[in-house]
Amino acid sequence: MTPNDTIRIDDLPIRDELKGKSPYGAPQLDVPVQLNTNENPYPLPEPLVARIAERVAEAARGLNRYPDRDAVELRTELARYLTRTGKHPVAAENVWAANGSNEVLQQLLQTFGGPGRTAIGFEPSYSMHALIARGTGTGWISGPRDEDFTIDVAAARRAIAEHRPDVVFITSPNNPTGTAVEADTVLALYEAAQAARPSLVVVDEAYVEFSHRDSLLPLIEGRPNLVVSRTMSKAFGAAGLRLGYLAAHRAVVDAVQLVRLPYHLSAVTQATALAALEHTDTLLGYVEQLKAERDRLVAELRAIGYEVTESDANFVQFGRFDGARGSHEAWQKILDRGVLVRDNGVPGWLRVTAGTPEENDAFLDAVRELKKEQNA
Amino acid sequence: MTPNDTIRIDDLPIRDELKGKSPYGAPQLDVPVQLNTNENPYPLPEPLVARIAERVAEAARGLNRYPDRDAVELRTELARYLTRTGKHPVAAENVWAANGSNEVLQQLLQTFGGPGRTAIGFEPSYSMHALIARGTGTGWISGPRDEDFTIDVAAARRAIAEHRPDVVFITSPNNPTGTAVEADTVLALYEAAQAARPSLVVVDEAYVEFSHRDSLLPLIEGRPNLVVSRTMSKAFGAAGLRLGYLAAHRAVVDAVQLVRLPYHLSAVTQATALAALEHTDTLLGYVEQLKAERDRLVAELRAIGYEVTESDANFVQFGRFDGARGSHEAWQKILDRGVLVRDNGVPGWLRVTAGTPEENDAFLDAVRELKKEQNA
Repeated sequence: MTPNDTIRIDDLPIRDELKGKSPYGAPQLDVPVQLNTNENPYPLPEPLVARIAERVAEAARGLNRYPDRDAVELRTELARYLTRTGKHPVAAENVWAANGSNEVLQQLLQTFGGPGRTAIGFEPSYSMHALIARGTGTGWISGPRDEDFTIDVAAARRAIAEHRPDVVFITSPNNPTGTAVEADTVLALYEAAQAARPSLVVVDEAYVEFSHRDSLLPLIEGRPNLVVSRTMSKAFGAAGLRLGYLAAHRAVVDAVQLVRLPYHLSAVTQATALAALEHTDTLLGYVEQLKAERDRLVAELRAIGYEVTESDANFVQFGRFDGARGSHEAWQKILDRGVLVRDNGVPGWLRVTAGTPEENDAFLDAVRELKKEQNA
Repeated sequence: MTPNDTIRIDDLPIRDELKGKSPYGAPQLDVPVQLNTNENPYPLPEPLVARIAERVAEAARGLNRYPDRDAVELRTELARYLTRTGKHPVAAENVWAANGSNEVLQQLLQTFGGPGRTAIGFEPSYSMHALIARGTGTGWISGPRDEDFTIDVAAARRAIAEHRPDVVFITSPNNPTGTAVEADTVLALYEAAQAARPSLVVVDEAYVEFSHRDSLLPLIEGRPNLVVSRTMSKAFGAAGLRLGYLAAHRAVVDAVQLVRLPYHLSAVTQATALAALEHTDTLLGYVEQLKAERDRLVAELRAIGYEVTESDANFVQFGRFDGARGSHEAWQKILDRGVLVRDNGVPGWLRVTAGTPEENDAFLDAVRELKKEQNA
């Protein structure tokens, strides 16, 4: 094709609100120690790799046929996992799965949000909530968060009462800050949201397996407008698999099927996820190692002299630097030492993922030098 | 979880336009001969199954990391395939891939359609175009088609001039009718669409490998608002893989990245698709067998006494039955003989997928008996 470099995105008849925008994306830099995207540093164990190859080969023999549109076997196994770890019995009919929790959230917003409706999140939080809202035509409301990055219940209730959103996002543990949310807070916001409209409350638990506290899953009991979303990207060490899921009342699971693209979840994705679920115990063993490493990062960062936000996730938010410029400069200096962390745009703070002990040592060396430099 | 069967979808705070709706889906019945979803009847050959297992195992070793967000290797190989078979050179930067062509079309509608915008299709055509439009808040316009199921250029141009749609869908070969669209027709509608607004023209070529004619791919040259969409579901015998793609000006590829969910395409999907592309020649050999079987179905159906729409796809539309009731009754009688075909709601017509020679024989026996019964 003849290159025609005179034509740019904005010359096409795209929607007005997309004009001048750039695609979402963490910088992917070629750096020895990558602690910027909250990936699990432990590769899948070889027996699991072999089992994936086996189950995918089996699926590939029937690949000429459409996959199970409703992913019943996978949802059954996810329900079994949640029942076992979430201290609350759920069945396949309470579970829905899609290509990453991003697609789960997109389907929820297509069903419960969309044009003429709004969603609220308490920021800073997972930036995709706002982006998926935009992508589905849902108005976005930036709700408040306290100085210490917890949710101030009274302020959050006021925001809900004022804006009457159709969807409320509560991220626990929160990304990028690491802070978990108390069950009482979720209950208070759920009640406020029901009184205001009623609206759907989505508790995003992408990182919950790393938490000191239990999952908020039991709260779905008797609350048909409460959804808990999850992912296999973090605790299952399978970011490359793109498997997100939700647990909720069965009516919610039925409802998202009105908007999901038919056959959205491939047979190879279903087979791979099922293989990983067979190895749950091994993978949760890695989670325990990462929790210990996360706690070590918190302790050592404090010992070095940084402020650290309490973390229930596989990452740690640390600072403070001198505003947005200070955190960006620190990000660059850490990068100059071969370690990539994340500047999420929270002024004065950076986020580091808990890696292997060796990766964390490299990071701690870098920030120790940085602190010395600052004190010099 | 305690079942709470008193709560239904419509009791939830879902969008008004979803109330009372049911999920899309072809009936999945347990019948010996399934010729209802245009699947390729040939399982992948064992050497390809082995290669998929090998490539997926390799991908699984890095599954703890996010996949290549831009799927560069896969897009490069898809571009190579298009260049080779489409009689027009394209590069990776002209190609975009997603989870099925449904997701490709959804991303296009999120970018070029959406709230306050409209899309037109010439019906009967692929029913997902209208459904994905609805799912993205895009208004849907049902454009006209001729008695013989071709597109009447003058009538289509009038519809475009009148409605000034933002997106125009042209399906070639058309589903469920099987009819291909002439390049001249596409060019005339493209010009009409540019004069009216300008708008994006999407040529859906899901079945083009089965056509007697060349792909319309070369038409993208110098037409930045023209997109050709494709799939690996049919010609590559990989409906279970969910791999759709498009070819267009690079600005279109850049634009859909504004709305695509980050990391939408899993590492296992990319690995499996790459393995399948290595076996293109074998798979295109099956396509030749299916084209011969399709032609046989057309000839034998006519010999039996049915009307048949010209087919450039891996399926055949046949009739006529007495309106919607007649085609539904015929569908049931064919099913009673163990063969599942598709009633797409085109009054007086049914659609049968070209299967293996044995499956097609079973189908032909069934419709032969049906014809005798009708003549009795």
